[in-house]
Formats: sequence, C-alpha cells, structure tokens
Amino acid sequence: MRILGVDCGSRVTGYGVIESAPGRLQAVGHGAIRIPAGRSLAERLRLVAEGLERVVERYGPAEAAFEEVFTAKNPRTALVLAHVRGAAMLSVARAGLPVASYSPTQVKASITGHGGAPKKQVRRMVRLVMGIEGDVRPLDASDALAVAYCHSTRGGSVA
Amino acid sequence: MRILGVDCGSRVTGYGVIESAPGRLQAVGHGAIRIPAGRSLAERLRLVAEGLERVVERYGPAEAAFEEVFTAKNPRTALVLAHVRGAAMLSVARAGLPVASYSPTQVKASITGHGGAPKKQVRRMVRLVMGIEGDVRPLDASDALAVAYCHSTRGGSVA
Repeated sequence: MRILGVDCGSRVTGYGVIESAPGRLQAVGHGAIRIPAGRSLAERLRLVAEGLERVVERYGPAEAAFEEVFTAKNPRTALVLAHVRGAAMLSVARAGLPVASYSPTQVKASITGHGGAPKKQVRRMVRLVMGIEGDVRPLDASDALAVAYCHSTRGGSVA
Repeated sequence: MRILGVDCGSRVTGYGVIESAPGRLQAVGHGAIRIPAGRSLAERLRLVAEGLERVVERYGPAEAAFEEVFTAKNPRTALVLAHVRGAAMLSVARAGLPVASYSPTQVKASITGHGGAPKKQVRRMVRLVMGIEGDVRPLDASDALAVAYCHSTRGGSVA
C-alpha cells in the first residue's frame, strides 16, 4: 500500500510517499512544497493544497498521515502552521484519502526508537530503513517519510 | 457588491452575506455551519468547506472577509480553530473570491464604535444597521454579518 506522509510548516511543507508491503518497504518519492515569501495567507493555503494535489496525482497513495502541530512553539507561528495544516488536510481528504495523525514523539520513536531524536538522526534512519542511497533534502522531506513510515507500522489513529 | 463574512469556530462557523452599495446596505443571508460532535478533524474540515461552498454558490458574493483567530484563547482550541479557518479560507479562495481578514476589535469597532463590545451589542447593531426585523441566530451569524460590514466600510486588508 502506498502511504503519503506530510510534515506541514508555515513556509515549507515536506512530503514523502512510501510503498509498504509485508517484508518490503520502499520510498517512491519525496520533496517539499515551498511557499515564496510575501504571499497572503489565502494564497499560501492555495499553493500548499495545489502542491499536495499534484503529489497525490503523481504517486497515487491510498492513505495519508500528518504530523501533529504543537502549541509549545511560538503561538503565532503555530497558528499559521495550523491554517496550512487544515488546508493541506482538507485537500488530501477531498482527494479521497483517509487521514491519520501522529505526534512528533510517535514519529521519531517509530523509526529511531527514541521520541526525542534530532531530525538528522531521523533522516539517517529513513535512508537506512528505506534503502535510499542519495541524500534526502530538505529535513522536512525526511520527516515526512518518517511520518509515512510511522503510519505503516502503527496502523494509524484517525486525525 | 456582495460580501461574505465568516466567523470560524471549532464547532460552529457563522456566515453572513451582505449587499453593499452607496447609501444602501442589506443582509441577504446568514446562518451557521454546525459540525456534529465526534467527527474526525479531516471530516470537520470537509464539512465546513462544503458548507461554505454552498453559501458561495447560493449567494454569489464577490469578496470574502474572515475574522482573525487569537492566541489568547485556550491554545488547543485555537489550534483546531486555525485548522478550520485554513480549510474555510482555502475553499473560499478557490471559489475565486479575494479574502480579507480583520481582528475582532476592528469588527466590533466598525459597527458599535467600541472594540470591546459584547457579542449581543454587535447583534443589536447588525439588526439596526441592516434593517433586519427578525432575530439573528446564532451569535456566530451576527458576528459574521458584522465581519462583512467591517469589510464594506474599510476596504479590507489582504488576509
């Protein structure tokens, strides 16, 4: 089954698609949707939604998993991020995909064994587990692959 | 010109459409989109988006205005609300409407002269200014009409 992982940010939204089958796990695509500076919030939401729709069309995932947003960050940034995540989740749900959600701790623990692992360690494990020889950039993309991996191992709680 | 005002909440999203012309101001429709309890976040986002799309289709507004979300509320509630607002803003923007945004203080001041006015006072002024004889319920709907009114008087800052 193909799983889309999404890691939303206020400026950069990472995505990663994996193919998961018993005894087999493969990354089939990853990247990031970047929002140019100076755009209005409505325009940013549209760009993220359109970007994710292209990803869904290109890779045809059957399910989607999102990383949760936390309030501990700068509250203003967290609010913008939540707008982006709402728009992203809507566009994926409307493409017909069931949507699950995981905390950063769940995601990190699933792939590194440690819920507080730094992003670069997550990326190392993503490359190792999925047999990716080249680099994975940006870190938003490796995070997104880890979210998809987390969903593949945990079955997913509904967002 | 027809203006759609939107006041998003985590459970109830109010909307109000006004027709604004020199020397004339009229409410043409208002109401609320209610999300049944127990729905997943993705499902809630979809219901709000579909509800607003029906409003846009029915009343054909040319522009939209949203009330801003504040961080001062319960941070968890504010985050859910920001997801809803992101989805709502995306659906309105994709329907081709320019989207403006106003703080609650701007909205209240525009129609009552006082940025800290209670919601019931806002509703009284909405009924008076727009010549609405019946009641306006829920308060989310009168708030949404006030947001549309605010946009009609201020020209609007881009969201």
